Amino acid sequence: MTTATPSSSYSSPSTHLSGNAPRWLVAFIVGSAHISNRSAQEYASTLVEPRPVAAIRMSEEEMNPAAVPAPVKDVQGDERWMSQHARFVLECKDAEPEVLFVGDSMVQLMAQYEVWRELFSPLHALNFGIGGDTTCNVLWRLQNGELDNIRPKVAVVWVGTNNHEHTAEQVAGGILAIAKLLTSRLPRAKVVVLGLLPRGEWPNPLREKNASVNGLLRSRLPKFGTVQFLDVGGGFVHSDGAISPGDMFDFLHLTAAGYRAVAKPLSDLLLQLLDETPEERRTSLV
Amino acid sequence: MTTATPSSSYSSPSTHLSGNAPRWLVAFIVGSAHISNRSAQEYASTLVEPRPVAAIRMSEEEMNPAAVPAPVKDVQGDERWMSQHARFVLECKDAEPEVLFVGDSMVQLMAQYEVWRELFSPLHALNFGIGGDTTCNVLWRLQNGELDNIRPKVAVVWVGTNNHEHTAEQVAGGILAIAKLLTSRLPRAKVVVLGLLPRGEWPNPLREKNASVNGLLRSRLPKFGTVQFLDVGGGFVHSDGAISPGDMFDFLHLTAAGYRAVAKPLSDLLLQLLDETPEERRTSLV
Repeated sequence: MTTATPSSSYSSPSTHLSGNAPRWLVAFIVGSAHISNRSAQEYASTLVEPRPVAAIRMSEEEMNPAAVPAPVKDVQGDERWMSQHARFVLECKDAEPEVLFVGDSMVQLMAQYEVWRELFSPLHALNFGIGGDTTCNVLWRLQNGELDNIRPKVAVVWVGTNNHEHTAEQVAGGILAIAKLLTSRLPRAKVVVLGLLPRGEWPNPLREKNASVNGLLRSRLPKFGTVQFLDVGGGFVHSDGAISPGDMFDFLHLTAAGYRAVAKPLSDLLLQLLDETPEERRTSLV
Repeated sequence: MTTATPSSSYSSPSTHLSGNAPRWLVAFIVGSAHISNRSAQEYASTLVEPRPVAAIRMSEEEMNPAAVPAPVKDVQGDERWMSQHARFVLECKDAEPEVLFVGDSMVQLMAQYEVWRELFSPLHALNFGIGGDTTCNVLWRLQNGELDNIRPKVAVVWVGTNNHEHTAEQVAGGILAIAKLLTSRLPRAKVVVLGLLPRGEWPNPLREKNASVNGLLRSRLPKFGTVQFLDVGGGFVHSDGAISPGDMFDFLHLTAAGYRAVAKPLSDLLLQLLDETPEERRTSLV
């Protein structure tokens, strides 16, 4: 039982392709397959009407490994990731959320704290966070049932700090791809993208990378009218460069006090966005 | 910045040896180095008095990769593991704990819930849990400062569910090695070993493995007089074989309700063990 054999009933191209290949490579191969399918469709359409060659070239987004949807491979053998996704899809059948949270452990753990019951549950919020998720995993989940049957007014995205195999540029592109997907699937919803938090007790390359991702998001997100960027990480780094375990118990995940600092500005923005919606609806009806 | 370069100021034989080698192999190599040192000492003693060859053979424990102390390599690049260990070592300088908790995320996250403040903080408990830790990592931490200057009356050990590279037999051996180290370094303390919890929404190989580890601990721990095994996972699997997200939000980590179910029997045992101690001390003085 040294290496537990995954007994997953789920089977995707990536699980067959992956084997011992690194995850980014698998994502890239799956992405390429996806691109080939699209190219084939484009090719079919040229049989009727000739189209410029540029149309079948890969877009920047399709070449970005952080923007390629991919499920998590069940390497441990207990299928927890797929169980969590399946539960979220089930929740979509009954719930009528006003707010949808989607992302990694930063989203998931928030629901374990009092602040969730106090500030977000009353807004009819669903929490679709899974620990360890990358932008690729969130994209896959959103394309595979986690947006079915729900019409939230606001979607909150918080993911990217686990994209260890991707550059800051790629991570920002992956987050933009999620925002794009949300605005396309939920055209009436507002999207809030939370900035990545600093991490590690002392200054380190991952802090710099997360700050770069935030810089890129800050400059590119305004192109999308209904998407807002919210940086909630301002107060965590002290003047000596240290992050306190009182804010992040393992110098990554937030304590109750850390979540409170993040939740207040987020809750204020959500209330504002939810308030706007009925008014805008009236305007659009006129 | 695709692969962040760790800028760790900490340097151990394992970080030099490891490179691209799998962690169990690194652990094994470090273990072998350790054995060579011991063998050299044994050899030195034979210069005075001949000893049987068997004495320098590797014991079963030394051959078990789950019983080889090893730090976590900083592959992500923010040195969070070493920061947490350093903080625990610092805490040892001032704190006078009655109870020491050591282990992985199951221990660490407990301190984020109300039940910790209610039942364990009043016992003057220290929480030395680090998410993702294996038996090897806990062994290393305990041998590198986390027992210095403290004399807890009870030590609680909860680790093993992350030992994915080891068999149930090896994991149980790793936990026994931790118990042995604790009884040797804290001869007046009682040791409580918590059983591994079931995991995954549905029956799976990791549940079976964790159950096997518990079976092995149950039969072997009674050999150590001051070590007790406590199985706190009895109520989590429902009659249909499912684990509820109300108990384990990701089918591994406990919710507030899950921790409450675990904490009650543990707190009862701790109170009993702490009560016994003064009486036993009087007896031993007579």
